[in-house]
Amino acid sequence: MANKGCIIRLSRYRNALLRLKALNFVKVFSENLADSARVTAVQVRKDFSLFGISGNRRGGYLIEELIAKISAILGKDEVQRFVIVGIGNIGQALLHYPGFKKSEIEIVAGFDIDQNKHNRQAAVPILPLEELGNFVEKNKIRFGIISVPDSAAQETLQLMLQAGIKGILNFAPICLKEPQNCVVRNLSLETELENIIYFTVLAEKEETGK
Amino acid sequence: MANKGCIIRLSRYRNALLRLKALNFVKVFSENLADSARVTAVQVRKDFSLFGISGNRRGGYLIEELIAKISAILGKDEVQRFVIVGIGNIGQALLHYPGFKKSEIEIVAGFDIDQNKHNRQAAVPILPLEELGNFVEKNKIRFGIISVPDSAAQETLQLMLQAGIKGILNFAPICLKEPQNCVVRNLSLETELENIIYFTVLAEKEETGK
Repeated sequence: MANKGCIIRLSRYRNALLRLKALNFVKVFSENLADSARVTAVQVRKDFSLFGISGNRRGGYLIEELIAKISAILGKDEVQRFVIVGIGNIGQALLHYPGFKKSEIEIVAGFDIDQNKHNRQAAVPILPLEELGNFVEKNKIRFGIISVPDSAAQETLQLMLQAGIKGILNFAPICLKEPQNCVVRNLSLETELENIIYFTVLAEKEETGK
Repeated sequence: MANKGCIIRLSRYRNALLRLKALNFVKVFSENLADSARVTAVQVRKDFSLFGISGNRRGGYLIEELIAKISAILGKDEVQRFVIVGIGNIGQALLHYPGFKKSEIEIVAGFDIDQNKHNRQAAVPILPLEELGNFVEKNKIRFGIISVPDSAAQETLQLMLQAGIKGILNFAPICLKEPQNCVVRNLSLETELENIIYFTVLAEKEETGK
């Protein structure tokens, strides 16, 4: 059974493979992929064997083939569409984040309660929150991003669930509980920075022997 | 020894405590904090005991006191200053992210190679990348955020290290290796979304028994 760490590594291997492919490479070795994800080659082979991907130790893996296999595992053999609720600083940045395209991820619409933000003509339209349910149902959207203030996060989660969304990334700095039959990940930027601060200060203390 | 999970929880307890304090609450119980971080009350008490924080099981903890203690652990008894290199979509959003203030985190400057983005007069100035070293040294900055395209990430890391930065959050979708005497966390938005896609699809498959 794959855990979160394994899926993160597969995602990193795939990114490295896409770069190698763009440089016209044909073959890759587990050692190359290990470098790209900062793990050991043994780990790479373990991850692959978990999904029945086998290579030739001497001959390596064919890059094209490997991309196809990992893409299928990660559900990236088709474009996955997301909606974003909350078009503040972070929501706005995610709407226009260029990196998603390469990963077969498409942000198809933003939703906000502020009518000054609405824009139906934009490349990625920003719509009134009331239209979320209809939009998600009509377009069969399964994934959403929450980037509202913390006080509105729980309510936004409920709206998304009612609309039929099944996988959610929450940027609001409040820890949402994962409901049954739905995947919710909490990613708080504050918490990420606090983590860095803590471990940096700790390392400095150890270094100076305090 | 505290691990990453423990520090993330402390950070969540602290956020919940700040909210409770704003609502004029005085005392809190481990059960309340457990709810806020989606863990058990036993876990809360374990986390606290790791840092020598003890409460009165019946009487609970004094919110004010607890905030002060956790803040000291997280290095938040003083404002921690960050610089950002790469003022694209994400960098721009982080420059103006309102949530950092509450967490005693201050973004003090942005840096970019594009002179059209430079703005010395802005509340948070955006400066030429060449000035990074001087600025960091002069202002004794220890923390940085990388939000450049992947091809520039490694070089940016080197510049930050040379300037004396000790803790780094990397948003570029390439996995940077953690150098000695420095804390580097890789946070790729693509990878986060890919993770959600994978586990959502997996849950759906299990549900339908495929």
